[in-house]
Amino acid sequence: MNEEGELELREACGIFGCVATKNQQVPLDVPTVISLGLVGLQHRGQESAGIVTTYGKDVYQISKVKGMGLVNQIFKPESLEKLKGNIGIGHTRYSTAGASQIDNCQPFIVETMHGLISVAHNGELINAKKLKRKVLSSGIGLSTGSDSEVITQLLSSSPPNGEPNGPDWPARIKWLMTKTPTSYSLVVMHKDVVYAVRDPLGNRPLCIGKVLPGTGSLPNINECADQEAHGWIVSSESCSFQAIGASYYREVEPGEIVALTESGVKSVGIVERPDNGLPAFCIFEYVYFSRPDTLLEGQMVYTVRKRCGMMLAHEAPVAADLVSTVPESATPAAMGFSIESGIPYVEVLCKNRYEGRTFIQPSSRLRQLGVAKKFGALTDNLKNQRIVLIDDSIVRGNTMGPIVKLLKKSGAKEVHIRVASPPLKHPCYMGINIPTREELIANKMDEELLAYHFGADSVRYLSVDGLQTAVKEGIKDKGKAGHCVACLTGTYPVKLEW
Amino acid sequence: MNEEGELELREACGIFGCVATKNQQVPLDVPTVISLGLVGLQHRGQESAGIVTTYGKDVYQISKVKGMGLVNQIFKPESLEKLKGNIGIGHTRYSTAGASQIDNCQPFIVETMHGLISVAHNGELINAKKLKRKVLSSGIGLSTGSDSEVITQLLSSSPPNGEPNGPDWPARIKWLMTKTPTSYSLVVMHKDVVYAVRDPLGNRPLCIGKVLPGTGSLPNINECADQEAHGWIVSSESCSFQAIGASYYREVEPGEIVALTESGVKSVGIVERPDNGLPAFCIFEYVYFSRPDTLLEGQMVYTVRKRCGMMLAHEAPVAADLVSTVPESATPAAMGFSIESGIPYVEVLCKNRYEGRTFIQPSSRLRQLGVAKKFGALTDNLKNQRIVLIDDSIVRGNTMGPIVKLLKKSGAKEVHIRVASPPLKHPCYMGINIPTREELIANKMDEELLAYHFGADSVRYLSVDGLQTAVKEGIKDKGKAGHCVACLTGTYPVKLEW
Amino acid sequence: MNEEGELELREACGIFGCVATKNQQVPLDVPTVISLGLVGLQHRGQESAGIVTTYGKDVYQISKVKGMGLVNQIFKPESLEKLKGNIGIGHTRYSTAGASQIDNCQPFIVETMHGLISVAHNGELINAKKLKRKVLSSGIGLSTGSDSEVITQLLSSSPPNGEPNGPDWPARIKWLMTKTPTSYSLVVMHKDVVYAVRDPLGNRPLCIGKVLPGTGSLPNINECADQEAHGWIVSSESCSFQAIGASYYREVEPGEIVALTESGVKSVGIVERPDNGLPAFCIFEYVYFSRPDTLLEGQMVYTVRKRCGMMLAHEAPVAADLVSTVPESATPAAMGFSIESGIPYVEVLCKNRYEGRTFIQPSSRLRQLGVAKKFGALTDNLKNQRIVLIDDSIVRGNTMGPIVKLLKKSGAKEVHIRVASPPLKHPCYMGINIPTREELIANKMDEELLAYHFGADSVRYLSVDGLQTAVKEGIKDKGKAGHCVACLTGTYPVKLEW
Amino acid sequence: MNEEGELELREACGIFGCVATKNQQVPLDVPTVISLGLVGLQHRGQESAGIVTTYGKDVYQISKVKGMGLVNQIFKPESLEKLKGNIGIGHTRYSTAGASQIDNCQPFIVETMHGLISVAHNGELINAKKLKRKVLSSGIGLSTGSDSEVITQLLSSSPPNGEPNGPDWPARIKWLMTKTPTSYSLVVMHKDVVYAVRDPLGNRPLCIGKVLPGTGSLPNINECADQEAHGWIVSSESCSFQAIGASYYREVEPGEIVALTESGVKSVGIVERPDNGLPAFCIFEYVYFSRPDTLLEGQMVYTVRKRCGMMLAHEAPVAADLVSTVPESATPAAMGFSIESGIPYVEVLCKNRYEGRTFIQPSSRLRQLGVAKKFGALTDNLKNQRIVLIDDSIVRGNTMGPIVKLLKKSGAKEVHIRVASPPLKHPCYMGINIPTREELIANKMDEELLAYHFGADSVRYLSVDGLQTAVKEGIKDKGKAGHCVACLTGTYPVKLEW
Repeated sequence: MNEEGELELREACGIFGCVATKNQQVPLDVPTVISLGLVGLQHRGQESAGIVTTYGKDVYQISKVKGMGLVNQIFKPESLEKLKGNIGIGHTRYSTAGASQIDNCQPFIVETMHGLISVAHNGELINAKKLKRKVLSSGIGLSTGSDSEVITQLLSSSPPNGEPNGPDWPARIKWLMTKTPTSYSLVVMHKDVVYAVRDPLGNRPLCIGKVLPGTGSLPNINECADQEAHGWIVSSESCSFQAIGASYYREVEPGEIVALTESGVKSVGIVERPDNGLPAFCIFEYVYFSRPDTLLEGQMVYTVRKRCGMMLAHEAPVAADLVSTVPESATPAAMGFSIESGIPYVEVLCKNRYEGRTFIQPSSRLRQLGVAKKFGALTDNLKNQRIVLIDDSIVRGNTMGPIVKLLKKSGAKEVHIRVASPPLKHPCYMGINIPTREELIANKMDEELLAYHFGADSVRYLSVDGLQTAVKEGIKDKGKAGHCVACLTGTYPVKLEW
Repeated sequence: MNEEGELELREACGIFGCVATKNQQVPLDVPTVISLGLVGLQHRGQESAGIVTTYGKDVYQISKVKGMGLVNQIFKPESLEKLKGNIGIGHTRYSTAGASQIDNCQPFIVETMHGLISVAHNGELINAKKLKRKVLSSGIGLSTGSDSEVITQLLSSSPPNGEPNGPDWPARIKWLMTKTPTSYSLVVMHKDVVYAVRDPLGNRPLCIGKVLPGTGSLPNINECADQEAHGWIVSSESCSFQAIGASYYREVEPGEIVALTESGVKSVGIVERPDNGLPAFCIFEYVYFSRPDTLLEGQMVYTVRKRCGMMLAHEAPVAADLVSTVPESATPAAMGFSIESGIPYVEVLCKNRYEGRTFIQPSSRLRQLGVAKKFGALTDNLKNQRIVLIDDSIVRGNTMGPIVKLLKKSGAKEVHIRVASPPLKHPCYMGINIPTREELIANKMDEELLAYHFGADSVRYLSVDGLQTAVKEGIKDKGKAGHCVACLTGTYPVKLEW
Repeated sequence: MNEEGELELREACGIFGCVATKNQQVPLDVPTVISLGLVGLQHRGQESAGIVTTYGKDVYQISKVKGMGLVNQIFKPESLEKLKGNIGIGHTRYSTAGASQIDNCQPFIVETMHGLISVAHNGELINAKKLKRKVLSSGIGLSTGSDSEVITQLLSSSPPNGEPNGPDWPARIKWLMTKTPTSYSLVVMHKDVVYAVRDPLGNRPLCIGKVLPGTGSLPNINECADQEAHGWIVSSESCSFQAIGASYYREVEPGEIVALTESGVKSVGIVERPDNGLPAFCIFEYVYFSRPDTLLEGQMVYTVRKRCGMMLAHEAPVAADLVSTVPESATPAAMGFSIESGIPYVEVLCKNRYEGRTFIQPSSRLRQLGVAKKFGALTDNLKNQRIVLIDDSIVRGNTMGPIVKLLKKSGAKEVHIRVASPPLKHPCYMGINIPTREELIANKMDEELLAYHFGADSVRYLSVDGLQTAVKEGIKDKGKAGHCVACLTGTYPVKLEW
Repeated sequence: MNEEGELELREACGIFGCVATKNQQVPLDVPTVISLGLVGLQHRGQESAGIVTTYGKDVYQISKVKGMGLVNQIFKPESLEKLKGNIGIGHTRYSTAGASQIDNCQPFIVETMHGLISVAHNGELINAKKLKRKVLSSGIGLSTGSDSEVITQLLSSSPPNGEPNGPDWPARIKWLMTKTPTSYSLVVMHKDVVYAVRDPLGNRPLCIGKVLPGTGSLPNINECADQEAHGWIVSSESCSFQAIGASYYREVEPGEIVALTESGVKSVGIVERPDNGLPAFCIFEYVYFSRPDTLLEGQMVYTVRKRCGMMLAHEAPVAADLVSTVPESATPAAMGFSIESGIPYVEVLCKNRYEGRTFIQPSSRLRQLGVAKKFGALTDNLKNQRIVLIDDSIVRGNTMGPIVKLLKKSGAKEVHIRVASPPLKHPCYMGINIPTREELIANKMDEELLAYHFGADSVRYLSVDGLQTAVKEGIKDKGKAGHCVACLTGTYPVKLEW
């Protein structure tokens, strides 16, 4: 998946929350902790970012900073100074075509009859249209039409426990969760509480960390020390913990609502899955989205990717002189393939780090050289070699052809493509912006045709079973785990209603 | 050398030139070729970039576009359209503190008595102050005081061949070269000629490429085909050739002036080295500056770095479970160390691609966690392991300590640092912004002290001999090659005059 | 009132709408007409501007452009091209401290159960807090808390005619008008209709114009020709008509809803005033806000200001050599004073057009010279003269003292200040951001004390009766006219409820 | 001359200098004084501005701030803080098409063999091309080709008094002045001296002011008090004095060099005019460029313009009901016409202050309404009236036609145009960017044809004699005064050499 911009998280971005523990000698600098947390989630969204903080005493006292661009660009010292509070939430957002504007930048702050609430959202409501009709038909006007606005209006208006307008936020959130099973992870801030919420299917990740006291000593992030907490954090991924000096505590369970306050962390409710089915955690978080050092379901993403590569070597072996990768996302899988196959891992491509999104439009002669702007061939390493080239996934298939051509022109004898995930064939309605069926190359060509199309000597995918086996191998309680593979099989975790 | 911003090219940036061959059916799109060429040289300078083009008929008809930022940001379709011509030169500039302003953006255009000349410069005049005094004392006022302005004024005023003001530009350039032996590579455009110039010591790289005709087929860049050229290019590094569809032709020789015109490429002069000494090509182009896929002195930079790693394994072996690297520049050396030592190569750190230059100033508690914003530890891969960690160079030594701490906190049993270049101890006056003697950590600590300082189990550098052997091994005519190692030994290639 | 930034319209800005007549050979270029209309309303708001247009066939097809800054800066050719449609509305917004952000930029677009509506608003709801509580208590979350959002939510949820959710927009608007008597002028666009609405008290202006056909010939804007219309426009002020080639048609009546469609203009409802009282048109639209060439209640603003000056000369005569003004807003009143008193009108101050809001903070010695950055004294004209200096209003009284000092230092013999409006003593809750009682200088000093404070020889205000007489003199049906003078008398047109 | 952008100063902008007097208790804040001075010269150039300051002890210690835009935008507190020194110069530059770039922003700083000099320049060298050839042929390269660069190179290289390279700057400046008689006013800063220089013909204005001590009391700017100076300033126009608390001291004489130091003001040389002719002060400084409150040759510009209007009433009387003006530059002339003719002065047009340069391109129907975006007709004032409309000058004649049409459509009975300067027929080579002969409407139409072209009832210009008489009337020593009227008569003050 080096085809930039092909696979995009729609409303699915990075969310983060932090609460300082009370009575600390040196209070935790909550706005800075959140900004560092968002830096660690930057790979989940580069379009815009926002932070909202409060001291939690007055439901109308809140400070916010939002902006377009990278977290580093938005949260400079002068903007961090505007953020006051010992509790707060943050969001970093993916760039999707057209909607790239400040209006959609989260967290959203909404005034309700019980004061202000702030909400940051990762995911996409599978039955968004139906819910939106429901909101509109109750006489509410919507100004952005986004899923996140639908969520905030449902939270504002929900009648929990027969007490139509009570300020019982866990009850309101539960009520929301009964209306829509997926896909969302949320942080909801009201007064002096941050609620961390994962949808009943557990489709998007969310985990809790404990900020350890002490100045500057790196904590051992793998063991949650007995020390008293300096504060608590909640994050889409655990890769953001180390930079904060926090240790991994636990995941938010599917359907669970966890309250973070100055007194600590407490589970305040859980919503059951319909028919007590299994969760449907997005398997592409392993394949592509999450950072390699993140822990998901108790295992490190890098290790899962390595296992996928090993499984692939097992399923689709090939005689070759070297295993390589299109830098950088498929490297763990390539390492795994090399270990399993015994074929040495060698670099064959060198990346132009500054290439970015090029606006230079070359004339027709030069357009087909596009890939060479991004990658240089390391000819010494590949001349007369039979190469196994690993990629993590293939979506539209626009990039692989030119790469194969580049390698062959540079002297490669054979190029065998191995893809560390199964063919992508079906749309996602839970937060991933997969192209239409027509655009997905797996719907147009089988492995043989694809090899011809790419000019490669062979193309093989990992099987769905192989992927699931590789993922489950590291999970302790395998019976309780379940993954969404709808984009691979077309079987969705819930009935689609429009 | 992961200590960002430590080693900087002062006036030493990326330069590029292009000339379209005459009578082509589809004329070469020179402005686009140059912009693509500069994208490939982006690693040599990210502060600003500029392109100047002309049709070469009128010495006063010239078009230019310059700007601050990356090449991609400056050369969008609307700005490329402003560039007219079938010949041109370009420049990409390194960001150095303070001087980051549009005034210094190259190429410079200067009006002389014989019309406009344009100049782009990579390097730093070793006797700049003396030359500047010479220019000033002749009654010329200098408005930027940069080395490049000194060069353009010397070119404007030089009295070649006893004909004080003749338009014989090769003679003027030769005269300039007799006044200052190093350090500069230049592209000089006048009317319909681009002169490619390398100083007599050959301190900075410069090479020539042949643009092949045909639409879109990637040429085999390693063999300069017999086909007629579509155009000719000159570039600081050959890594920019593939994206243009150009094949490698040859280097500009130390002291040589090559003229590129619509009729082809022609050597128009060579200036001898004083005392017929050896060249002094900067050895750090191999160690750090050049892109791995560039060819220098006939060999690929990646391969030289791999050999440095092999030599290092030979010189400073250690018992360990895995070899790894601080991503990404030291990877080739780590691969070499792994091959030579037989210890497997394993990734232990994962890079936050979006970290960039962080403006977020964490409070004291968080400041020491800085490195964790940039790198995540892949704990599964390193727990209880004895690690050999390869770096390409150590300058101020600010980053290595926190990385060792991060690895150890994450479970590493031992961390042995191996540096694929010798200790850096002396200032450079030829284009590299090496810190003062006091700041260079190699002047303050030996290997043992350094290990203690970093919290590492051992630290060892590559020897100067080892580096030179690794570099020379791939050069065909070893007797003619010579390298500047002044920053390592304190012996400068020419006498320093102020 | 030359004290910049003293008197500000809070939510009270400029609004504009346009509909093209059907079956025209050359269709009216609606987006351009609106942008030109907003240029003519620029004096009512310089912070931001927005335009929304549609072809009115699909209730979800709408295009918008919004931005910070002046109309000219936002609506350049490339942004105008994005606007598609034969019907549209626009808004230009005043800059108020703190809230200067793109979120508050109008027109607002809101999705309701009957499709999208767009709303632009001029004014401030006198009972905003009460209405907001009402909206919140019905379970709706508010994201900006602005009056305009309250209006759109009331429009979305209103139960007209017992048919709770019918798409009868005039009925919904009427229902809104029964909930809040003032202060608002609105343009509401839904599908193919623009509704022009003035609140029952008629507090803010709004008038209709007829776009005349013909290419480029300036229409006689004072007579609404018999020709068929090329289109219809609605605008806060008629001063924007001439630039569009439109003639003045009529005002929207207090409490009236007018529908503009491709078939023409039609009154579709009128809401009575409580107790059938008189309207309460803001008298400061005459004194300060409106452009001199605008028609209000059938009379030109310039002429009213001139009459105020005449009335002032009558009420507060003085022996002097010349009448002058602080440029530029008080010039019409000064002309009137000159005519009535027979004292010649002479310029004594010259304005620095480029002064704007100065960020240069002079040291203490220079701070008190501030007014001299803005105005230069025309010494030849004032030396040894007795000056009557006219201002249109005095708010905080910060500027007049330095001006008097400047004139006296430059040689003036006497300076008599005459203010063409009564003392400003009470806050406004209907759209004008009058400072607190404590800041209003009229609450701290009487005329005598003020003269001493300013260093002037005398100060006199126009009386409330004098102002009202001057305003009413040009109104045909005087019995039906009524003006809000709450800021002068403290008597508000409706009971204030919080 | 309301035809925006028609008449432009080419290299002729605003220049300013300031020196603090030594041993003051509270030292003068020189950077702030200069920035306030430039605000007062803003009408002479709005494209860019710059300030350079120094403590004058070290010839290489200098601080500068330059930027594009208005003085207020560039010199905010944070940028003023960067400027250190008790002596400095500043410049504000006119926007001319194409060359609008930061490279050309002044003051220029140039390193010479005797240290840094800084130069700010107002004017244009009448024999620029010849001088440039001279500089080039001496072997100097020019990087901007501007007149100002030619000046700095001549200053750097000049061989005064037979001592080729001495640091005697007054001698160098004198030598420069013998090479080029006009057009330039300069401020040149070297070490601790600011030299104020006016060319021998005195073509551009330059005057000296004395900063008076005391905190905040406005000085009487018309009398230069006996008090000791707090500092000294030099400025293109005296209108900038009041805002600084400075009084008018005297003009720099044509050909004079005045040195400003911490010890005071001293004339250090004068260069005679060729053949002892009269000066050639640009008469358009009176007609259009200077601010009305500026003193030129001892008289206030406003008064001269009023006299032009009186002279015009005398030369070209007409029966009418009112005299008016196209706001705002022609108002003084209109006042004068009214006084002389006895016809009352009445406003008929109201200006849209925010119109600026419109980028909105109306369709053909709307294009001809352009003038109505800029001006609104005050119909009450002009209906059935015979109007005398005064303009200060007519260049291309693009605006007057639409204005006449607007007035007539709005009800004017007759419109008689009176122009308070003679027909503009010839190019200027001394700093004013007059269009080509073909574009000047006075070369295409006489008064009668012009009236027909504009749709006016008559058009009459002021005569050259009339203008000269009006200008000279206020000059004390009329025998010594001389004015350049080349653009009106075609007779240039010196022989043109190319």
